[in-house]
Amino acid sequence: MTQHFDIIVIGGGPAGVAAAIRGVQLGAAVGLVEKKHWGGFCLNRACVPTKLFTATLERTKTIRTAAKMGFPNAAATLDPSALFKLKDELVGYFSMGTQGLIKAKKVTPIQGLGRLAGAGRVAVDEKIYQAKAIIIAAGADWARPSFPGSELEGVINSSQFLKEGRIPPRTLILGGGAWAVELGQFLNACGGQVMLAVRERGILPHFDQEIGQRLRSILKSSSITIHNSCSIVSLVKDRGGLKAILSVKEKEEAHLFDRVIYLDRTPALDGLGLETVGLSDLSTNDRLATKVPGIWAVGDAVGRIPFQSHRASAMGIIAAENALGASISFNDNIVPRVAFTSPQAASVGLTENEAEEAGYDVVTGAASMGTSPMAMIQDATNGVVKVVGEKKYKELLGVHVLAPFATEIIGAAALAIQMEATLEDLARSVLPHPTISESLADAARNALDWAIYIP
Amino acid sequence: MTQHFDIIVIGGGPAGVAAAIRGVQLGAAVGLVEKKHWGGFCLNRACVPTKLFTATLERTKTIRTAAKMGFPNAAATLDPSALFKLKDELVGYFSMGTQGLIKAKKVTPIQGLGRLAGAGRVAVDEKIYQAKAIIIAAGADWARPSFPGSELEGVINSSQFLKEGRIPPRTLILGGGAWAVELGQFLNACGGQVMLAVRERGILPHFDQEIGQRLRSILKSSSITIHNSCSIVSLVKDRGGLKAILSVKEKEEAHLFDRVIYLDRTPALDGLGLETVGLSDLSTNDRLATKVPGIWAVGDAVGRIPFQSHRASAMGIIAAENALGASISFNDNIVPRVAFTSPQAASVGLTENEAEEAGYDVVTGAASMGTSPMAMIQDATNGVVKVVGEKKYKELLGVHVLAPFATEIIGAAALAIQMEATLEDLARSVLPHPTISESLADAARNALDWAIYIP
Repeated sequence: MTQHFDIIVIGGGPAGVAAAIRGVQLGAAVGLVEKKHWGGFCLNRACVPTKLFTATLERTKTIRTAAKMGFPNAAATLDPSALFKLKDELVGYFSMGTQGLIKAKKVTPIQGLGRLAGAGRVAVDEKIYQAKAIIIAAGADWARPSFPGSELEGVINSSQFLKEGRIPPRTLILGGGAWAVELGQFLNACGGQVMLAVRERGILPHFDQEIGQRLRSILKSSSITIHNSCSIVSLVKDRGGLKAILSVKEKEEAHLFDRVIYLDRTPALDGLGLETVGLSDLSTNDRLATKVPGIWAVGDAVGRIPFQSHRASAMGIIAAENALGASISFNDNIVPRVAFTSPQAASVGLTENEAEEAGYDVVTGAASMGTSPMAMIQDATNGVVKVVGEKKYKELLGVHVLAPFATEIIGAAALAIQMEATLEDLARSVLPHPTISESLADAARNALDWAIYIP
Repeated sequence: MTQHFDIIVIGGGPAGVAAAIRGVQLGAAVGLVEKKHWGGFCLNRACVPTKLFTATLERTKTIRTAAKMGFPNAAATLDPSALFKLKDELVGYFSMGTQGLIKAKKVTPIQGLGRLAGAGRVAVDEKIYQAKAIIIAAGADWARPSFPGSELEGVINSSQFLKEGRIPPRTLILGGGAWAVELGQFLNACGGQVMLAVRERGILPHFDQEIGQRLRSILKSSSITIHNSCSIVSLVKDRGGLKAILSVKEKEEAHLFDRVIYLDRTPALDGLGLETVGLSDLSTNDRLATKVPGIWAVGDAVGRIPFQSHRASAMGIIAAENALGASISFNDNIVPRVAFTSPQAASVGLTENEAEEAGYDVVTGAASMGTSPMAMIQDATNGVVKVVGEKKYKELLGVHVLAPFATEIIGAAALAIQMEATLEDLARSVLPHPTISESLADAARNALDWAIYIP
């Protein structure tokens, strides 16, 4: 007998779990299909394990700089194997927690590989389920690069790196996005030599240009090498390692590495059975509906870059509501982008360039961390808080932060943009002293030409 | 010849500096009178130095727990003298910075003891200045307690503690407010024995009761002793220390201490010359005007407890604007209260009790840090994020946080309340994962009965 659901969600990551729970809350019978890893990429191989590593990076920094902060004999050596073990425990704990959550919320878990099997039908392995609505939250797959030698054994993705559980002595990381820099700083703090090969001219492409530039100059003072406008000409086995020929600003260089780590991911559409319903991709309207009625798509499967799990879960909630009769638009403009680098970077709304391209008469304001008491107390004064606004109506368009705790304080900016605050509203917010967040108000005042604490 | 200003500000702390700068920005000639410490209590003896200590508390915790977070051999001993030296350097740096800021902003600094000398007149030492408006930002003085023995030498305030630059082996702290707990945790982390004698039944009286209760139970598991409903019967010199007889819940106990630290402060009205203009106190209306036209009062001098320097500077800005013709109300409801305890506490808007007393039909929602991935990564899962709202219109009334980074993430809640967000707005905010701040959204959803991540 075929089992019927109101909603079947394909994919048990952040987008799918949120969609399924929201569906049940609204009275629907919901089946959630996951092939193996409950909690998805985020829990098992990205956010949770890697943010343990970036927190470790902060701990390393705290201990290494403790000598000048009142602890003359501070010393500690990171034991990577202990850390990888802790990572496994943490992932195991949250994986159990996710499975418990799904049950507690009365979602029906269906383990197996889910695929569309015609209108209103989902096949999981050999079994067919029927549903009034289908939400596709199938996530993304690794996109192995295609340079000569990219098929060699030492070319791995970050999931394989996590599985190997070792710090390679010499690593080439492909890309300059958030996780590339986070991983590079982590490996570097563990004593590894790190080079980033970045196609683009800067790093952190999804952030305001100034944030990337500042972080780049901070990285330069570490022993991490960043090559921009860089591609890999070839890779061959050599002397127990991998010899890479890099094209750097049109000149060629050769370097030896133990591992080459790639980080690109692409929507996991293969084997999803899109063709059985007449879909060739998962592009959606702003209510997250695909071109086929009754089929919705959310999370990394939709391919909105940068992939961010909080965006995925927000999409999941809205897709479930719309699948059950609501008509809510998903507003990507209120979704923060974060990088757990050191210092952290976080952004919400339009960058200065994006605002200009959108035709706004742009005004910006910035507060440097060099004059922030909390930045000095945190021994991290090389950051900035920058706001982007519109001149005439003083609309707040974007906020960009490079500073300690940036991933936490961007929430204030996200709320401000969601609530359609003006620069004046942000300028008149009362934020605690001494914190990093208080610089949000002075940056907004700076844009309005009345900064109080900027000389 | 008498010098004329548009505005004279008495007191060069956070309130006075902000008022003076804002006045100049609006075109006024402003004189700023400070008797000695530019930057005031906050910079010289409170926020800046003490938050270095609370950051040190976090560093100590990081190092002490590093062994279970991947650093098996972590070790460090705090050298208090190095820390006190660092404190002096930091204060010196920011004191210079404040003086530089005042000059860069074209405020006229006047060094000396300022006092009112009749309508529109301020005397500084022997000199008389005239001003169209006077903003009193004179701050607060220590309020020495009055139990038998309170005049003994070892009974000191926190400024004297900072000046002594030593960790007393056994300290009795009077009170259970934010700084009492921060100081207690710091001394305890430095190896000192600490007891808190608190008149009230709980700690953190200016926070939601649940926050104080949770922090109290965290403190119980440290070696800090907290006595609530406690008063000091007497204090005498004994065996090289101070013997205190405490009345604890109506029973008497005797304990030996090296220092008794008191923290109460009271508006600094003595010698201000209020009587020369017919004022007996500095109570103000919501535009920060005293009962005498042309005289405004801001900051700790007004006596709004708890003293918070960000509130003081926000008041300073508004008073300057109103002194120059605006009519802006100061809204205390958008001012966060923060405690740099471990974990940190932060609050904005109404507590649950305050909301009930104000007659609201109250609904609350909470997200425990026990299920927060970032809290687990930070090794601090004993906190909570709590929202207080109103049932019918879903108005967001207050947000209360006990968690790592609470002092930074309360900004999101402060913006939400300033922008008159509803519980629904906060529930639909998209906050980064994995962070502590994301719990704000789930706590709001919990209040609306649709929490996603709370089983």
